[in-house]
Amino acid sequence: MSCPGNPSGEPLAQLRYLSREEAEALEKELLEDYRFGRQQLIEIWGHACALAVTKAFPLATLPRKQPTVLVVCGPEKNGAIGLVCARHLRVFEYEPTIFYPKRSPTPEYQDFTTQCEKMDIPFLSYLPTEVQLINDAYNVVIDAILGADAEPGEMKEPYTGILATLKQIRIPIVSLDVPSGWDAESGSSEGISPDVLVSLAAPKLCAARFLGRHHFVAGRFLPYDVQKKFELNLPEYPGTECVVSL
Amino acid sequence: MSCPGNPSGEPLAQLRYLSREEAEALEKELLEDYRFGRQQLIEIWGHACALAVTKAFPLATLPRKQPTVLVVCGPEKNGAIGLVCARHLRVFEYEPTIFYPKRSPTPEYQDFTTQCEKMDIPFLSYLPTEVQLINDAYNVVIDAILGADAEPGEMKEPYTGILATLKQIRIPIVSLDVPSGWDAESGSSEGISPDVLVSLAAPKLCAARFLGRHHFVAGRFLPYDVQKKFELNLPEYPGTECVVSL
Repeated sequence: MSCPGNPSGEPLAQLRYLSREEAEALEKELLEDYRFGRQQLIEIWGHACALAVTKAFPLATLPRKQPTVLVVCGPEKNGAIGLVCARHLRVFEYEPTIFYPKRSPTPEYQDFTTQCEKMDIPFLSYLPTEVQLINDAYNVVIDAILGADAEPGEMKEPYTGILATLKQIRIPIVSLDVPSGWDAESGSSEGISPDVLVSLAAPKLCAARFLGRHHFVAGRFLPYDVQKKFELNLPEYPGTECVVSL
Repeated sequence: MSCPGNPSGEPLAQLRYLSREEAEALEKELLEDYRFGRQQLIEIWGHACALAVTKAFPLATLPRKQPTVLVVCGPEKNGAIGLVCARHLRVFEYEPTIFYPKRSPTPEYQDFTTQCEKMDIPFLSYLPTEVQLINDAYNVVIDAILGADAEPGEMKEPYTGILATLKQIRIPIVSLDVPSGWDAESGSSEGISPDVLVSLAAPKLCAARFLGRHHFVAGRFLPYDVQKKFELNLPEYPGTECVVSL
């Protein structure tokens, strides 16, 4: 059977890692040419991220008695994807808690916040600086702070402080698209070391430096012509799943 | 393990069938109280409908050489869900063809059309009145024409003609939410007889008269408080799946 990423059945060409410019061009094509809605893309990606978490950390394997997950959300798109991820994790029987220190004024992002609030997902008013409290309370931390657009050199409070805390914790971190503190292209030797990376659409160049256990790609919905134009060479997604493990 | 539909683990109460008024109140609650976006809901439901089709008609079991599916879309929300369903079916390796005789002027619905067009999903300019042509060309027809809001007595052309054709075809029909020509509450003895029904959020009253092979419910994302308020008593969704077979 053919697949969108490999219609010929021939050996797959090498997986493509995107530069920041290419990632932006791909997103622009989806939004402007294909007329995908921002809310629609965030819903698709957030759902896929939640599924990646269920694969990397199945409910039955969590070390804590409660299936707690801390989702740390940044101010822009990556944070909104984190909110959607938290909502779906709640539906999948996890117990997410959200830390969202700077809420976006964008109405569509506010709607994602309301959905979580109305579903009684707790929001932390501050992140404990005592890392042992985080290690003890949660099974996993989801880093939905900064995405591919972020310039790590320009990072400000409260995110520099949050990152300093995340660097010290011992529970696994799942990073969405680009680990916070990393440069989307060159990565970082000083940033966090996530256990799981979920690349949106395709890995960014920095993903070549990812050394964690699981690397998922979420982007099955990508039109074939977009995959071809950007030479993504994605592996075949299993069954009807929306994430694939590399 | 508890589930949102059955947190106590006790025997499930009987599945609830919604009146038209209850279905409208549930949708209103999602849109106004929970601030779900219309585009977001349509994406979630269309994706779930495509998954239901893959379960009822797996690629490997289709009788035709090509995995063709005809998706007939109405002018309103149900039609937009059909467009999203077609898009995901394409991603799942099916070959959807869309018949969408009256395109909605609503921009968000137009965006769903553009997504399909840009993915090279063919649109029929007319529906063959010779039913044998439909029987021969497609494996399945998806009826995304009219939903729970429609008053069957007020149905006009081109939909009366389309329904007359669909009543005669011999290939299986998948109806989204309410089979076209049926009243959402009382059903119909004169409408089509779908093989598969995909209920959105919860079955409508008319679903009690559904005699086809597969009845799916798509609405795993529904907040627990909404499920409780409307006493949906949904069965447990398997794994991380977004549809459940009744």
